[in-house]
Amino acid sequence: MSEFDIGLEQNPANFEQLSPLTFLKRCVDVYPDHPAVIYRTRRYSWKEMYTRALQLASALQARGIGKNDVVSIIAPNIPEMFEATFGVPMAGAVLNPINTRLDPATIAYILDHSRAKVLITDTEFSPAVKEALVRLSRDDLIVVDIVDVQNGNASTQSDTLGEMDYEAFLETGNDGLNWSLPDDEWNAISLNYTSGSTGNPKGVVCHHRGAYIMAQGIAAAWPFGLHPVHMYIVPLFHCNGWCHAWSLAVCGGTSVLVRNINAANMYAAIAEHRVSHFGGAPIVLSMLINATDNEKKPFDWPVHVYTAGAPPPSAVLEAIEALGFSVTHVYGLTETYGHVVECASQPGWAGLDMESLANIKARQGVRYANTEGLMVADSETMQPVPGDGKTIGEIMIRGNTVMKGYFRNRESTDEAFRGGWFHTGDLAVQHPDGYVQIKDRLKDIIISGGENISSIEVENILYKHPAVAAAAVVAKGDEKWGEVPCAFIELKAGVETGEAEIIAHCREHLANFKCPKEVRFQELPKTSTGKIQKFVLRGLV
Amino acid sequence: MSEFDIGLEQNPANFEQLSPLTFLKRCVDVYPDHPAVIYRTRRYSWKEMYTRALQLASALQARGIGKNDVVSIIAPNIPEMFEATFGVPMAGAVLNPINTRLDPATIAYILDHSRAKVLITDTEFSPAVKEALVRLSRDDLIVVDIVDVQNGNASTQSDTLGEMDYEAFLETGNDGLNWSLPDDEWNAISLNYTSGSTGNPKGVVCHHRGAYIMAQGIAAAWPFGLHPVHMYIVPLFHCNGWCHAWSLAVCGGTSVLVRNINAANMYAAIAEHRVSHFGGAPIVLSMLINATDNEKKPFDWPVHVYTAGAPPPSAVLEAIEALGFSVTHVYGLTETYGHVVECASQPGWAGLDMESLANIKARQGVRYANTEGLMVADSETMQPVPGDGKTIGEIMIRGNTVMKGYFRNRESTDEAFRGGWFHTGDLAVQHPDGYVQIKDRLKDIIISGGENISSIEVENILYKHPAVAAAAVVAKGDEKWGEVPCAFIELKAGVETGEAEIIAHCREHLANFKCPKEVRFQELPKTSTGKIQKFVLRGLV
Repeated sequence: MSEFDIGLEQNPANFEQLSPLTFLKRCVDVYPDHPAVIYRTRRYSWKEMYTRALQLASALQARGIGKNDVVSIIAPNIPEMFEATFGVPMAGAVLNPINTRLDPATIAYILDHSRAKVLITDTEFSPAVKEALVRLSRDDLIVVDIVDVQNGNASTQSDTLGEMDYEAFLETGNDGLNWSLPDDEWNAISLNYTSGSTGNPKGVVCHHRGAYIMAQGIAAAWPFGLHPVHMYIVPLFHCNGWCHAWSLAVCGGTSVLVRNINAANMYAAIAEHRVSHFGGAPIVLSMLINATDNEKKPFDWPVHVYTAGAPPPSAVLEAIEALGFSVTHVYGLTETYGHVVECASQPGWAGLDMESLANIKARQGVRYANTEGLMVADSETMQPVPGDGKTIGEIMIRGNTVMKGYFRNRESTDEAFRGGWFHTGDLAVQHPDGYVQIKDRLKDIIISGGENISSIEVENILYKHPAVAAAAVVAKGDEKWGEVPCAFIELKAGVETGEAEIIAHCREHLANFKCPKEVRFQELPKTSTGKIQKFVLRGLV
Repeated sequence: MSEFDIGLEQNPANFEQLSPLTFLKRCVDVYPDHPAVIYRTRRYSWKEMYTRALQLASALQARGIGKNDVVSIIAPNIPEMFEATFGVPMAGAVLNPINTRLDPATIAYILDHSRAKVLITDTEFSPAVKEALVRLSRDDLIVVDIVDVQNGNASTQSDTLGEMDYEAFLETGNDGLNWSLPDDEWNAISLNYTSGSTGNPKGVVCHHRGAYIMAQGIAAAWPFGLHPVHMYIVPLFHCNGWCHAWSLAVCGGTSVLVRNINAANMYAAIAEHRVSHFGGAPIVLSMLINATDNEKKPFDWPVHVYTAGAPPPSAVLEAIEALGFSVTHVYGLTETYGHVVECASQPGWAGLDMESLANIKARQGVRYANTEGLMVADSETMQPVPGDGKTIGEIMIRGNTVMKGYFRNRESTDEAFRGGWFHTGDLAVQHPDGYVQIKDRLKDIIISGGENISSIEVENILYKHPAVAAAAVVAKGDEKWGEVPCAFIELKAGVETGEAEIIAHCREHLANFKCPKEVRFQELPKTSTGKIQKFVLRGLV
C-alpha cells in the first residue's frame, strides 16, 4: 500500500455518493423562492416543489416503498411529473415513467415486467390504463390518480382508477421527512422502457452517478447559466426528459411546462416567460416554422434550442434560425441518459452560407465533455472506420452516462455491451473533422450487390420531390442483387405523381444502384411517438 | 441481491474512473486548433499543448516515474506549468507545485517530506532552490531546469541546477505515448503544501474524482460558457490554480498567462485578448483600481472576476464594479480544491445601493452545487449555530471536493475530519438568509471576559482610519479579562497619529470591550504570499 492511501481513505467528510438529488437540496437552500415550475396558473417555487416531493417520498415510504422498488407514472409534463422525478428517488425508489401514448397491452407489459408497486396515472389516459390494469396479471398495485383540472374535460370527465387522488396521497406524507442520498451511487434511479419497433420494449436502468454527471454536464455545456427559463417540451417520460429537470436544479432554473404542444402554446410560453432554452424533436421546430402569423409571438432575446431524435432537415434548420432561434443538433439514446453527442460549433463555420451551414449542423457531431468514448466502428471486429466521411460503421459509446443495462434482460444487456462499448444500432460515417453523421439504423441498411445503401440517403432525396409528404425506404429481397430499395410514399394532399416520375427524380440525384426499384403510394404506419414503423413496411414487401 | 444489480454490474462500456484528464482528451479531439495557452509571444493550441504534455508524461515514465510518484515543480504561470498540470497526472504521477516565494528551508522540507522524485525548476528561483538542494538529505532527485527567455535576465542569467533543460527533457519523451486514465478515481492527482503560519507546511492530497467534479462544477457555475478567455493570475502552484486549468478543458477555453502581475500587464492582457474571466485576491483588484490612467485600457465586454483569499473590503468591491468588472466573492481552501462557497447573487439585491450591496457581497456565501455540505457549527459539539448573523461557529465542509487528507500526517488528517466534516479553522456566522460570513480564524479570535472578539471586526475599523495602511489585532494576556485586543499598525507614508487617537477612533465604532487596550506602530511581518503573520505579532505581546 502506498503512502498516498494509508490514512487517506474515504470518509464522510471527503466522500459522498453522487446523485442529482444533491442539486435539489442545494437549490432549495440557495434559491428557495425562485420558481421551479410554471404550469398555466400553477406555480411552485423550488421550496414549494421540494415540499411536495418530500410529501410524495414520505407517502411512498409509508406504503413500504424503498430501495429498488419501482414507482410507475403515466403523465405528460405537469407539476406532478416534475416533482416525481425528484420525489420517487428521494424515497430511494426507482422512477418508471411510461409513455402516455402506449397501448394497453404495452402498458400492462411494462407494469408487469418492471414489478411496479405503485402507479400514478393522469386521468386523461384512464381509458388505456384501465384496460391495462384488467390485463395485468396481479392485483397488488397501488394506484393513484392525477386529476389535472387545467386540462379540462379530457381529465375531469375521465374515470379515476385508483384508491385515491394524488393530492390526497401527498397529504398522507410528511414534508419533514429526513431522507438521504443513496447508499451507493450505482443504485438505480430510473427505469425507462424504450419504445422498440419490434418485440417487447426493453427497460433501460439508469443510476444516480450517471444522472449526476449528466445534470452537471448539461449545465456546463449548453450552458444553462444562472436561472435559465426552460420550456419543457421533451416529455419527462422520454429518457427522463433528457435529464434536464435534474440539470435545472444545478443552476436554479425554471421549467415552463407545456401539456399540449402546438405552435400557439409554445410561442405564448416563450413570450410570456422569456424562455431561454428548450429541447425538442425536429417536428417541434417544424411546428414553430409553420405557425400562422397569428400564432407567432415576437421575442428579442436568445432562445437556445437542442434538437434530437432525427437528423433535422437542412431546410428546417435554416428556417428556424431565421426566426431567431439558436439551434444545436444533439444525439443520444435512452440508454445514454439522452444527448451524449453534440454538433459543437466551430469558429471556421462562421463564413459559410446558410445551406452549407445547415448541412454541417445536421450531422450528429462529437462527444460531450462528460462522454468518455465515442467511435464509429465495425460492429463485429470493433475496429474504428477511417474518418473519410464514407465508410459506414456503428456508433458506439462508452462512459459514465451509459445505462447499467436492460432490466431483467441479461442477453440484451450483454449484446449491447459487447466488446466493452455500448452498441447504439445507428450506422454512421465519421468525417475528416471527427464529426459523426448517421446514415441509417443498423437494421435499416440495404445491402445491394454487396454495396451498402443508406435508406436515409434515399429518403432525403425523396423528401425533395414536391409531391412527397413522407417517405420510407426498406430492403426488398431480390434474386440477383440480394436486396434492392423499395420506397413507400405518402403524398401531399391534392397532388399526384407516379412510380416512373419518382424513380426518375431519384436518378437525377443518386447513383443508379441506390434508386428504388419499386415505389408504393400509401399512408405510412407510425409508432405512438410518430416514428415510421419500418418493420411493418418490411412485412409488406 | 436485487434484480437491479444482477447482470447490471459496472463494465468498461458504462463505467469509467472520473478524472479531469478525460476533458483534455476530448478538448483536443473537438477543438484541436483553439488556443489553450498564450504567454507573450508563445502560443499553444490545445493539440500543441497536449503534445507537449504527452512528451512530458512519456519522459517521466522513461525515468521510471509512475503511480504515486511525486513530481515537484517550482514555476510561475508559464506554459510549462500549465502543461505539467496535465502531463504529470497523465504519467500516473502526483503533481506537487511549490510556491515560488518560499525560503530554501521550506523548499527542502517539501522536497524531502513529499519524497519527490523529480524537480522541475524555473531558473529565476535558482538561488533559493540551489540552497534547498544543498540542505536536502538525499541526492537521488532528478532536476530539470526551465529557462524562460521571455523573462529576460532574471531567468537567463541565473544558474541552471539540473541535468538538463526542460525542452531537452521533453525531447526524451514520445508524443505517441499511449497513456490511460487512473485505475482508481481515488488516486492522488496532486499534493499541495499549505503555507501554514506556524510549524511545517502540511501536504494536501487531492484525488482525480474531486478534480473532475470541481472542473465540471466550475464550468457550470461561473459559467465559463464556450471558449472563455481566462487570464491566469491565480498561481498554478496555489491550490492547482483553483482547478481552473482542468475546467478550461471542459469548455475549450484559453488561458492568458501573466508571469509578472501588475496593473499594466493585466489591463494589456484584458484588452489584447478580450479576457472574459479571471480569478484573483482582493489585492489584485486593488491593483486594477489604483492603476494610472496610462496603465488602464478600456474594454466594453463583460469581464467576470472571482475573488477569494480574504474578504474584499466593500470599498474595493464598489470601485472594481464601477470599472466594469463583474465580481463574485468566493471562498475555499487548498483542502477543498479551491472555491466551494460563493456569494451567489439574489434577485432581491438589484435594488440595493452600492454600499449595501458591497457589504452583502463581502460575505462568503453559500455552497456551490457540487459542495455537498456546508455548516457553521460548534467545533466540539458539531451542533450548527443558529442562523442569526451573530453566533460564531466554525465553518465546516463535506463532500466530494474535499481532500483525501494530509500526506504522511495521520494526526492532522484525523483532526481535520473530526465528526465527519472538514474543519476549516475559519470562524463565521450564518445570516438569516443562509449566507455565511467569516469573522476570524479560529486561532485569531480574542476571548475577553468570556466574550468573543473578532480580530477582523476590529481590524476593519482600524482600516477606516485615514492614517492606517495596514492593521492586525491579536490577543494579549490580561490578568483581569483573560485576553484583551492589542493592535499593530503600519502607517501610511507621511502621516502621523498616536495611540489615544486610534483608540478614540475605535470607540466611535465599536463596543468598548472590543477596542484595543494597546496600540503599537511598526511594519507588519508578512508571509511570502503577503499574509500578515499574526503568530509573529503574538510573540511580541
